[in-house]
Amino acid sequence: MYAPISSSSSAFLGQRSSTNSRWSKVVITSRSCETIRCVVTPEKTAYKTTVSRNANLAKLQAGYLFPEIARRRSAHMQKYPDAQVISLGIGDTTEPIPKVITFAMAMRANALSTLEGYSGYGAEQGDKKLRAAIASTYYGGLGIEESDIFVSDGAKSDISRLQLLFGSNVTMAVQDPSYPAYVDSSVIIGQTGLFQKDVEKYGKIEYMKCTPENGFFPDLSKVARTDVIFFCSPNNPTGSTATRGQLEKLVQFARDNGSIIVYDAAYAMYISDDSPRSIFEIPGAKEVAIETSSFSKYAGFTGVRLGWTVVPEELLFSDGFPVAKDFNRIVCTSFNGASNIAQAGGLACLTTEGLKAMQDVVQFYKENTKIIVDTFTSLGFKVYGAKNAPYVWVHFPGQSSWDVFAEILEKVHLVTTPGSGFGPAGEGFIRVSAFGHRDSVLEACRRLKQLFK
Amino acid sequence: MYAPISSSSSAFLGQRSSTNSRWSKVVITSRSCETIRCVVTPEKTAYKTTVSRNANLAKLQAGYLFPEIARRRSAHMQKYPDAQVISLGIGDTTEPIPKVITFAMAMRANALSTLEGYSGYGAEQGDKKLRAAIASTYYGGLGIEESDIFVSDGAKSDISRLQLLFGSNVTMAVQDPSYPAYVDSSVIIGQTGLFQKDVEKYGKIEYMKCTPENGFFPDLSKVARTDVIFFCSPNNPTGSTATRGQLEKLVQFARDNGSIIVYDAAYAMYISDDSPRSIFEIPGAKEVAIETSSFSKYAGFTGVRLGWTVVPEELLFSDGFPVAKDFNRIVCTSFNGASNIAQAGGLACLTTEGLKAMQDVVQFYKENTKIIVDTFTSLGFKVYGAKNAPYVWVHFPGQSSWDVFAEILEKVHLVTTPGSGFGPAGEGFIRVSAFGHRDSVLEACRRLKQLFK
Repeated sequence: MYAPISSSSSAFLGQRSSTNSRWSKVVITSRSCETIRCVVTPEKTAYKTTVSRNANLAKLQAGYLFPEIARRRSAHMQKYPDAQVISLGIGDTTEPIPKVITFAMAMRANALSTLEGYSGYGAEQGDKKLRAAIASTYYGGLGIEESDIFVSDGAKSDISRLQLLFGSNVTMAVQDPSYPAYVDSSVIIGQTGLFQKDVEKYGKIEYMKCTPENGFFPDLSKVARTDVIFFCSPNNPTGSTATRGQLEKLVQFARDNGSIIVYDAAYAMYISDDSPRSIFEIPGAKEVAIETSSFSKYAGFTGVRLGWTVVPEELLFSDGFPVAKDFNRIVCTSFNGASNIAQAGGLACLTTEGLKAMQDVVQFYKENTKIIVDTFTSLGFKVYGAKNAPYVWVHFPGQSSWDVFAEILEKVHLVTTPGSGFGPAGEGFIRVSAFGHRDSVLEACRRLKQLFK
Repeated sequence: MYAPISSSSSAFLGQRSSTNSRWSKVVITSRSCETIRCVVTPEKTAYKTTVSRNANLAKLQAGYLFPEIARRRSAHMQKYPDAQVISLGIGDTTEPIPKVITFAMAMRANALSTLEGYSGYGAEQGDKKLRAAIASTYYGGLGIEESDIFVSDGAKSDISRLQLLFGSNVTMAVQDPSYPAYVDSSVIIGQTGLFQKDVEKYGKIEYMKCTPENGFFPDLSKVARTDVIFFCSPNNPTGSTATRGQLEKLVQFARDNGSIIVYDAAYAMYISDDSPRSIFEIPGAKEVAIETSSFSKYAGFTGVRLGWTVVPEELLFSDGFPVAKDFNRIVCTSFNGASNIAQAGGLACLTTEGLKAMQDVVQFYKENTKIIVDTFTSLGFKVYGAKNAPYVWVHFPGQSSWDVFAEILEKVHLVTTPGSGFGPAGEGFIRVSAFGHRDSVLEACRRLKQLFK
């Protein structure tokens, strides 16, 4: 239905000269109507504003990871136009949204054409009923109230709004490897130094190494104090999930340091053991943590766009000012609420029927995970994560992640994600996503067995 | 359907102590389950992180304008529970969305529950077909291509993403008065100095005075050079529209100074004379301008959320780097695309039937405008704007905007917007929005005649 991401982003990611003659642009983008006028224009006459490029943007390396993968996939498809490419790459949901949820959205859409059903601007923070339903469904008994919930168009947008909240003068820590949006948004807002090519890290970011050696939980005794700590569990990309004991340590670490944890719980419903599903299950967390989450991976809302962020009123800056009050100001100034149709879908997700339907979706992807784990294990690979997450973290010791990615794509037309794209400690791993139709996953596993037998 | 905005924002806007004893919070928010433990906790023991509050947020004055008005409206309704309050305040659309558009959204929502119709992540920049339709509908023949269009969840979000693009080291100019999001987002990203109470302006922002004396177009010979110039036409709040000659001057001014214009054209379809509907109608604008727009006021999408921003590839930073390339990186890192259902609605908006339906909606609000203009004129007031915009800018010379706002609300239960909320040059005006059901507008006008006869 949609054009591949790469088709629109490749022009930007390509190694186009930044001196930009109008001529070179015309060639690349085929704007033939301008060619005649432009070809004769010498390169140096292209008008430039005198506005300096934002130095933070200039620090960013290459493209954002997933558009880059989409670009490589697209190039592969051009090379092999007849290949049946299967993607277990970007982590995009594939299964239809349960009818109980789409029905509610269709009803809401139709109602918008009636006098009684029409509504304009909603509250920037989200529909009161939805905020209440999120609070009671996911945080019942944890002391999180409706007013602590900010409904959003997804966790990625909220991560950037949180960076806007913190500003450029804070320091941050991230798990290494981690979802690239934490680091990239930190670079954009100006919290970091330059990218250091030798270590593949940005200056001033504290990378908390998470590897098989430490059970994918950082050795906090070696982690420097930062203002903000991004922490994702179940983790994207490693699929590992922090235990209650580990999260207690993390909360204590934050309390000892006066830090704020930004806890990404977007995969919490994939947990099937007794690991905490929310950071707020840990006593004392409300005074040191923000939690962000999303309907994307539960209800297949990656395209519908709906998430939320919890900022407890107990969380205070050093001067005693409530963090939620400033976040509210950011949300009111930089956002106008999630789509009312998506919010109607969110409400349907949280009915008894909707919750059951989401659990079925999650269960389906968890079965995919098991198939992928069994395949790699049978081939003698060591795999991590997977148990409480839709991601399988496969170890290729001593190999380059991008090489493994390229080999799998080239030889069996299968898209994965190179571990090093998530941070230097991801080198030697690939992330295999369990989001896929069953037959695609089975076929992908057949191909993997062929390749690695 | 939605809770009034104020119900969720009032707790934040209220003058709550920032020293925040847990006890005082419990009283305000009625979290009675915590009362027993908290009441005995002395104020000073409340845990604080050691993270400093973002100094830019601390510069912001009071609440964002519209939540503040919602709060006052809410307080008024508590005082007069039986009053029939009419709002011609926030500029929120009231008329149902045309069926041809809601039908497309309902179809898309339903299709998401099928294997064939499901889609996950779309391109961050928006559906290729929608980008193409926007380019051809609104920019046909102007040399703006599909790849220049970035589909968004609305202009307010995009304004903040543009600020993220520019960063803290640019200077900016705004029309005074203007839509508050330009200034507030500039403060948040760190481009400004402190708020100067005596002149009611933030330091380092160039306020371009727009009053009846200059025909609401700034005297550019008195405007200092800035990196970025926010310009909105048809203007919110004054309702004035820049002529072709004026926009030619503006573009020349930007070219002479090497500035970038951010042109807000969210009301362009309200233009019924020969004023330009896009800044790109002006020769040379593509090298100095970005344009942002929205379906909100055309199709009643204030709640659905869909807009777009045009960043021509011709627009270059001083080092020749394309602005669009950096904006693409911002969009890919801080946003995951507009809701696919809203985008399906956007595509329907741009069919022949959809365009006709949007024109009918616009025409309806323009008739409201005329009713309001006739009312104020018959009462002897001088009114401005209105001709090409859904806003009537009414002059109360020598009076305080907030006093006029308060008097109208108190005496005839009618919500307007105080002009000074949009900037110091708005003092002595109120903005009356033409968004309302016909009977509400007629009733509002009856009440105004009663009050001011």
